[in-house]
Amino acid sequence: MARAKRSSLAASPAEPAAENGLLDRRIFLSSGLAALGAAGGLALGSPGGARAAGPPETPPWSQYPGGPLSGYGGPAKYESKVTRVLIRSQPGTTGSGASRSPLEALEGMITPSGLHFERHHSGVPDIDPEQHRLLIHGMVKRPLIFTMDALMRYPMLSRVHFMECSGNSQLMYGPTPPALRAGEIHGLVSCTEWTGVPLRMLLEEAGADPAAPWLLVEGADAAAMSRSVPMAKGMDDALIALFQNGERLRPENGYPVRLFLPGYEGNMSVKWLRRIKVTSTPTMTKDETSRYTDLQDDGKSLMFTYPMEVKSVITRPSPGVALQGPGLYEVSGIAWSGSGTITKVEVSADGGQTWAEAALSAPVLPRALTRFRIPWKWSGGPVIVKSRATDSSGEVQPTRDRLVAEHGTKVVFHYNAIQAWSIAPNGEVKNVYA
Amino acid sequence: MARAKRSSLAASPAEPAAENGLLDRRIFLSSGLAALGAAGGLALGSPGGARAAGPPETPPWSQYPGGPLSGYGGPAKYESKVTRVLIRSQPGTTGSGASRSPLEALEGMITPSGLHFERHHSGVPDIDPEQHRLLIHGMVKRPLIFTMDALMRYPMLSRVHFMECSGNSQLMYGPTPPALRAGEIHGLVSCTEWTGVPLRMLLEEAGADPAAPWLLVEGADAAAMSRSVPMAKGMDDALIALFQNGERLRPENGYPVRLFLPGYEGNMSVKWLRRIKVTSTPTMTKDETSRYTDLQDDGKSLMFTYPMEVKSVITRPSPGVALQGPGLYEVSGIAWSGSGTITKVEVSADGGQTWAEAALSAPVLPRALTRFRIPWKWSGGPVIVKSRATDSSGEVQPTRDRLVAEHGTKVVFHYNAIQAWSIAPNGEVKNVYA
Repeated sequence: MARAKRSSLAASPAEPAAENGLLDRRIFLSSGLAALGAAGGLALGSPGGARAAGPPETPPWSQYPGGPLSGYGGPAKYESKVTRVLIRSQPGTTGSGASRSPLEALEGMITPSGLHFERHHSGVPDIDPEQHRLLIHGMVKRPLIFTMDALMRYPMLSRVHFMECSGNSQLMYGPTPPALRAGEIHGLVSCTEWTGVPLRMLLEEAGADPAAPWLLVEGADAAAMSRSVPMAKGMDDALIALFQNGERLRPENGYPVRLFLPGYEGNMSVKWLRRIKVTSTPTMTKDETSRYTDLQDDGKSLMFTYPMEVKSVITRPSPGVALQGPGLYEVSGIAWSGSGTITKVEVSADGGQTWAEAALSAPVLPRALTRFRIPWKWSGGPVIVKSRATDSSGEVQPTRDRLVAEHGTKVVFHYNAIQAWSIAPNGEVKNVYA
Repeated sequence: MARAKRSSLAASPAEPAAENGLLDRRIFLSSGLAALGAAGGLALGSPGGARAAGPPETPPWSQYPGGPLSGYGGPAKYESKVTRVLIRSQPGTTGSGASRSPLEALEGMITPSGLHFERHHSGVPDIDPEQHRLLIHGMVKRPLIFTMDALMRYPMLSRVHFMECSGNSQLMYGPTPPALRAGEIHGLVSCTEWTGVPLRMLLEEAGADPAAPWLLVEGADAAAMSRSVPMAKGMDDALIALFQNGERLRPENGYPVRLFLPGYEGNMSVKWLRRIKVTSTPTMTKDETSRYTDLQDDGKSLMFTYPMEVKSVITRPSPGVALQGPGLYEVSGIAWSGSGTITKVEVSADGGQTWAEAALSAPVLPRALTRFRIPWKWSGGPVIVKSRATDSSGEVQPTRDRLVAEHGTKVVFHYNAIQAWSIAPNGEVKNVYA
């Protein structure tokens, strides 16, 4: 029972790719549901023969003219429950805390900007872009102050990238698995298209000292959120981001300008950016000493643990997205890595004994969410499903046991272990440590 | 003066790639602004030496806690003018007509769903997804009726694709160039990530007759918008789309379900889809006889002209996005083709005598908007800028003269000619026929 057929196209398309009904990922692409005819296709449509001569009875919305054109659209009223998940703000504040993307309600790679997660340290500042300035100073030949209009004139790059809070999934370090949905547990990750000016250009123009290995970056929020960033990252792929998903940044994502550091923990991509100082040492800001360090079991803390490591989660099925009886399903989820590109996602339907390789939805982009999908025929018995991602650096998502053994019991950041969902015979899905 | 350096990296990075200041597209990628030092970099930041010890004076938004977390975010109030451009509705209606994407205010490849163009024939129906059904019937072995919950269980694909109305840019057929912005002229094109069920699967499950070459597709709006679609397209890349940019479709984009036909004129991707009938002939619906045909000069009409052909437009600079004095700029724009992938975009700053190849922003995806950018040093004199796209089928965007000669003077659809913007010494940009 421990055989592991990973990726070879089975002789019969309906032959399992792993135990408990996982099928070859290419079945739907190559031969379609027809190939599963003998084994039972989806057949979810109800027979329409009795009324085959025409459509269903004419509903009211087909009988009268509909609503008007609009300047800026929003979701359907029937989707009003699909929101960011608001976590209680910190005492005495309304804007300090986090809200999470409802991962279980989303599909594809892009997160709509209205549902991109939030993490603020003193609320969302209301910044007038005409008045806002970005200063570059410190170890530079000529300090410079940029208006937003000036930044808009520089050459730009566009890239689709995930952003993940270093504290994402931290409840999973706890002794019992939280009875929450995928977004409530793992929704401090989102993925959008970012457009902006390569930071390298501005540093070169200011004449940054090549011998200065650090940058201090500071936000214009009342918390003056500040981090030290290695100059090497600043000269590599750091963006001074002005646009998100095609339009100017949303207020909660740093309007009018933010730093964006692909693959690094989200808090370093400082929002409402007002200052970049070129320095010879890390600045040891409050945000990187009192917070955003990884406390070890021996009482010491790791600092400057930047990249978010390889990770994945199944979003369908997941808690709150139950199965509707035995039969054929598609398992769908997201994978990502701050260290590069997702090269493989494997799915198990027997708690991790056997694994089948999922299909990755093109385009598979570096440091972006990657949608994976695999067909699955559920027998109706109790099962545990898991996903396990591998990235282009060769890193494989660890088990929870291994992660906890390595990270200790005091840390709250950088949780990236394999997620297990248990499915009961009634189709309900629960978060489990397994 | 007619030399045309297209893509070879110039010996000196600041040497022109084409006349009137177009520079090699790789300058910014390879050597940065520093390489342009002798020729003059951007230097748009004001010297900050006097206050180099600290940031600019503390603005009010840095002194007090900011606003709260929110369930669903929206744009900054300072961007309230960035909306779809509402064109007057047809007489007696509020929802029949079109609204356009403000292309000149956008960057990158993705259009935020709130700014995706609209084109409705009887307004936006308010459809209850619990009550809505999709029927597949006609020449099938077993007619099927699908609930939305049933569709959600099928295997899905995600793809980033543009959608363009066949009537986009139709004012450009007129005798004088319309004095409008890029979005007002060309904004019936947008680009989002679409996720849904391959139509092929549903047709196979219904047992569609392989000898039936046509589909009738019909919407649930009061106009019962209907088109005939070749079965070959239905079996190829047609999607039954349920999600757009990660979330469920917006009402104005077909909630809860629409057809999506990559590369085809937008009206065929019928929204609020309620019926697919497998047929032996095209149905000759009102929408494909009284509308959406290409009237020729001889009085005959072309029917079933599906793919939107290769096209591009410069969005910065463009009317309303003026230049701020002589110096270094980046020319930015979008290109797309319904016939495949954009392989090249050339830019001219001398009215089309010489051309330089622009950089294409990765990922360059089939039937998706492709952002192009090229550095340009404006001397301050009057110039005419143009862009010219080439696609993977070898098609090159035509001049307006050639397009009008081929399409005639009576047609209003499928305008894809090269767009010329004239720039005056004061930096103002105008639409011209040149």
